[in-house]
Amino acid sequence: MITTVPHGPVLELRLSRPPVNALSPELIAELRRRVEAAPGEGARALVLSGLPGMFSAGLDVPLLLTLDRAAMAEMWRDFYALLRTLAFSPIPVLAAITGHAPAGGAVLALFCDWRVMAQGEWKIGLNEVQVGLILPPVIFQAFKRQVGPREAARAVRGLLFSPVEAERIGLVEELIVPEQVIERAVAWCQEIVSLPQQAMLSTREQSRADLCGLFSQGVEREVGEVAEVWWSPEVQTALRGFVERLGKKR
Amino acid sequence: MITTVPHGPVLELRLSRPPVNALSPELIAELRRRVEAAPGEGARALVLSGLPGMFSAGLDVPLLLTLDRAAMAEMWRDFYALLRTLAFSPIPVLAAITGHAPAGGAVLALFCDWRVMAQGEWKIGLNEVQVGLILPPVIFQAFKRQVGPREAARAVRGLLFSPVEAERIGLVEELIVPEQVIERAVAWCQEIVSLPQQAMLSTREQSRADLCGLFSQGVEREVGEVAEVWWSPEVQTALRGFVERLGKKR
Amino acid sequence: MITTVPHGPVLELRLSRPPVNALSPELIAELRRRVEAAPGEGARALVLSGLPGMFSAGLDVPLLLTLDRAAMAEMWRDFYALLRTLAFSPIPVLAAITGHAPAGGAVLALFCDWRVMAQGEWKIGLNEVQVGLILPPVIFQAFKRQVGPREAARAVRGLLFSPVEAERIGLVEELIVPEQVIERAVAWCQEIVSLPQQAMLSTREQSRADLCGLFSQGVEREVGEVAEVWWSPEVQTALRGFVERLGKKR
Repeated sequence: MITTVPHGPVLELRLSRPPVNALSPELIAELRRRVEAAPGEGARALVLSGLPGMFSAGLDVPLLLTLDRAAMAEMWRDFYALLRTLAFSPIPVLAAITGHAPAGGAVLALFCDWRVMAQGEWKIGLNEVQVGLILPPVIFQAFKRQVGPREAARAVRGLLFSPVEAERIGLVEELIVPEQVIERAVAWCQEIVSLPQQAMLSTREQSRADLCGLFSQGVEREVGEVAEVWWSPEVQTALRGFVERLGKKR
Repeated sequence: MITTVPHGPVLELRLSRPPVNALSPELIAELRRRVEAAPGEGARALVLSGLPGMFSAGLDVPLLLTLDRAAMAEMWRDFYALLRTLAFSPIPVLAAITGHAPAGGAVLALFCDWRVMAQGEWKIGLNEVQVGLILPPVIFQAFKRQVGPREAARAVRGLLFSPVEAERIGLVEELIVPEQVIERAVAWCQEIVSLPQQAMLSTREQSRADLCGLFSQGVEREVGEVAEVWWSPEVQTALRGFVERLGKKR
Repeated sequence: MITTVPHGPVLELRLSRPPVNALSPELIAELRRRVEAAPGEGARALVLSGLPGMFSAGLDVPLLLTLDRAAMAEMWRDFYALLRTLAFSPIPVLAAITGHAPAGGAVLALFCDWRVMAQGEWKIGLNEVQVGLILPPVIFQAFKRQVGPREAARAVRGLLFSPVEAERIGLVEELIVPEQVIERAVAWCQEIVSLPQQAMLSTREQSRADLCGLFSQGVEREVGEVAEVWWSPEVQTALRGFVERLGKKR
């Protein structure tokens, strides 16, 4: 489900779960293990990439709708643990957004150090509200940190953006032609690992202190609430409508 | 003083106090009552609009200069109560800025959910300092939340902006031709009320938590200080000079 | 080392330590004394300018490498005291960035009220990491306040910017042709001192409260850590490499 591609000191973790890199419980757990293991295996920076045209479609809603309460609660705990792992990664993580990145796809990118996105007809954004999901507070705060409080209000409408719009509001930092997005991401990482490491890593720690701080009070309560809301009639109805529309599109 | 125009589930509150929609104590009280009553009367979103070419000229300084200390203190309490009502509105409020919006006009817009402004030769901004008024802290913080700390420093100079400049610094989010500003605002509201309501409203609450938080310590002390400063010789002199210049302009 | 040029109520402090306005312990102490003395000598606003094409190259690293521990510790205390003096200046301070402003040069500008920069082939930015220095927390926070958390992450890479890029990310507020940068800065100051002073100064105090707040817990501990890190092998090696490259460039 994840292809690892070494580029010298930079390790690329390529999400490879066709057709849309949907985040299943297994992919979530596997990605977390790989991010945690990478520094111990010698990686000094990570690139998180996806399939051409599809970074990640976000949570695998059709699959999740088949899970029971216990399995869903565990999925949410694991998803938060993945976000925490990305936030606290001791080495820089660059998001190489190779295509679409709605909902959970955009969320992964928000917890990375920098975002390079492929130009093209892709959509990226926090469209949770469109499918009936409350945007979880830790994710809203990470979005607000990235784009500022004014632009973060767009999440209330669940808007998706083109790459050009995403760059304009600050959701991604760089755009590049699709065939160069991974190459550019690797170059970014090689540049950062060539810097004096003590200085770079200490400055990076300051830069990400607010992101890590989102987890400082513990997120158990929030995870519990998010897991509970999943089962509300409004959310279940909206999710099933969403899955039905997905089915018709295929 | 306020014309109400229903658009299905969206209620438009149109400020209608010619010639300049100056905020008198009566208009302030009336606007607050209408915003508070709207959800109970079935509205699911509000549009706050003004006269063509004039959203609101802000506080009615010539009238306020005729009030005594008690009446002025009440005016400030009521104005803060209006801002609090807008911040805590349980339904989205869109500002349809139909023209000029200096001082109090811009302030009303800052406490809404989103700002659509008419293109044209209008001026918008917090020019309080220009007329000798200290920008009240709650208003400065709301401005800073909207435009960020760097751009908020412009309030120190009391600058007014063209619509294009206002959009560039983030004081307004959208510009549109004057004849479509209300139509666009209504469409924005209709879009937002068509979303899954639990998801939208909960995400909106997160998005506005920092704005509502400005009132969390109580504003009685701040209101008292603002009311007191009004009577300082520097402020009174500046305000009377301002009113004199207004008179000559007419 | 500092040329003072009066412009009516506006006092220009022109850094004049050729060839590159490097910040020596003496220049740091002298600048602080001048900024502190200015209001008592009748100045109502300050312009901090530099040499044509060179605002300030930042700390005088070649000179500092000749100092012992005690002298370096004093240098850091004095540099922080200078930043604190700029932050708490009771009168507005405008940075007239006449040319290059890397590292310490950019830092001085960050603690001013507003930044006007000369157009041209100059570089500005916090490149401390490039030369092996951890960006001190107070300076990182001042940078983050100015450009927002997303753009502040660029400091992790120690990036330098052209004036056009600096304006785009918000590191400077205005660009102007080099021969007018001081003139424009003086005009900005004359405008601000012509405003009602009570209103302007009180609003300014609000606007800079977060900048002043960076010093509210005391910075003794941070200064101690910054002074200590200077002597780490990685930093010493990086600094000596930097000085060697400087020597070859000349």
